[in-house]
Amino acid sequence: MRENYMVDMERGCGLALLLAIAAIAAACASDSNNICQWHGEVPKMQRRIIDISHAYRHDLPVWDSSTPLGSPVHLQHSFANGSLFNLSELKMGCHTGTHVDAPSHFLQEAYEEGLDVNSLDLEILNGLVLLVDTPREENITAHTMEKLNIPFGVERVLFRTLNSDRRLMWRTNFESSFSGFTKDGAQWLVDHTSIKLVGLDYLSVATYEEAAETHRILLRKQGIILLEGLDLDDIEVGIYVLHCLPMRLINAEGSPIRCILTK
Amino acid sequence: MRENYMVDMERGCGLALLLAIAAIAAACASDSNNICQWHGEVPKMQRRIIDISHAYRHDLPVWDSSTPLGSPVHLQHSFANGSLFNLSELKMGCHTGTHVDAPSHFLQEAYEEGLDVNSLDLEILNGLVLLVDTPREENITAHTMEKLNIPFGVERVLFRTLNSDRRLMWRTNFESSFSGFTKDGAQWLVDHTSIKLVGLDYLSVATYEEAAETHRILLRKQGIILLEGLDLDDIEVGIYVLHCLPMRLINAEGSPIRCILTK
Repeated sequence: MRENYMVDMERGCGLALLLAIAAIAAACASDSNNICQWHGEVPKMQRRIIDISHAYRHDLPVWDSSTPLGSPVHLQHSFANGSLFNLSELKMGCHTGTHVDAPSHFLQEAYEEGLDVNSLDLEILNGLVLLVDTPREENITAHTMEKLNIPFGVERVLFRTLNSDRRLMWRTNFESSFSGFTKDGAQWLVDHTSIKLVGLDYLSVATYEEAAETHRILLRKQGIILLEGLDLDDIEVGIYVLHCLPMRLINAEGSPIRCILTK
Repeated sequence: MRENYMVDMERGCGLALLLAIAAIAAACASDSNNICQWHGEVPKMQRRIIDISHAYRHDLPVWDSSTPLGSPVHLQHSFANGSLFNLSELKMGCHTGTHVDAPSHFLQEAYEEGLDVNSLDLEILNGLVLLVDTPREENITAHTMEKLNIPFGVERVLFRTLNSDRRLMWRTNFESSFSGFTKDGAQWLVDHTSIKLVGLDYLSVATYEEAAETHRILLRKQGIILLEGLDLDDIEVGIYVLHCLPMRLINAEGSPIRCILTK
């Protein structure tokens, strides 16, 4: 059954541990083959955390602007000014750098229903994820999606595109020629996959030219969460555990988000 | 060995799964006792995500203020105003609601060294955590810490205090009589435990009266990360997996943070 192709390793972890203990005990109890020569402590597997969020650097590109971000934090109290502590204020657009879109970003009916970033499902934002490389010569069209052949059952996919090769998130100027989903690519995803979370490596999952309509196609299907501005450089394609935690901003249609992968 | 008392279940998860598969195979191969009557699919264990972050509600209390937060997001573009999308700006203090302190908050030398929230160690912010209830009649003093008897080897502890019973994070006015660490409680923690992350259920881990010096004691020991304003209501004490992801704010001495527990 293709739907069961990916075992949710994280959810099964506690169970796996119990099974391991029980089964090792069982194997040792009936150890006629002397297979049970394992002594000593369980070695710790080194879990590796990979940060796929960009820092809010002053030179981070900003959507449709030739002026980069600058600093989003400003000291209001400081030792330098005689205070007993440093204390900053934060001021930035909700769609700056690595961020998440809520349905209310492009759908007024969703805005009115309160489908803000605070309503995004943590069960979708956290779990197994597939990182794929897209063909470099094209946007993510229906044809591209068909070629990528993402198995049904996969719920979270990060698409690494030509944007990473071009290091667009490291340029100070916004670059409208970035790669992203076309309308028909988005429609194909909605119609033919079980994907509930899409991540991309520039400031929009949708191409510049078709941004509004493509977003609407993806956001209209309840539950598709869009991660934008991810840092996917220098990571092997494959399956990871994704943890993505946005701010609980009530009424906001977007939020800065920190995302990590563990392997 | 008390240091090895807590096995890092998350890091050991992949290994546990492999061990489970290998050991089940071994047990089945030598299944003279017919213990291996297990057929069919691995059942999915239901992982439960518990959100321990407060939403940025308009009525959230603000440090030392009788005026609550209000809305930190403001629409700049909206359908209502003829735009093709909604787009908000975010403006708030870096220590609002559920947030994390960096060493640079109370230590000028740390500020100069660049020990900002972007430098906080994701390995500490993510991993096994112990949730404890503190005695309700006292602040967290050296004596309290001694009584709590937190095993050496435990690196992350969330302290639920009288603040949760009093529902202080649900009051609009700041309440300076909240419970927290005293100086000697902080010093005891630094001297006698292996704790690298401390979480508390009001806007400061330290009492109002001793806030500055207590913070300095905790922040001075490299690596102690302070989570403040957590929502620890209605959770059983015990061991969980903690995931905490702050914003990558360069030069900021604090950041909003989203924290979840999984069980």
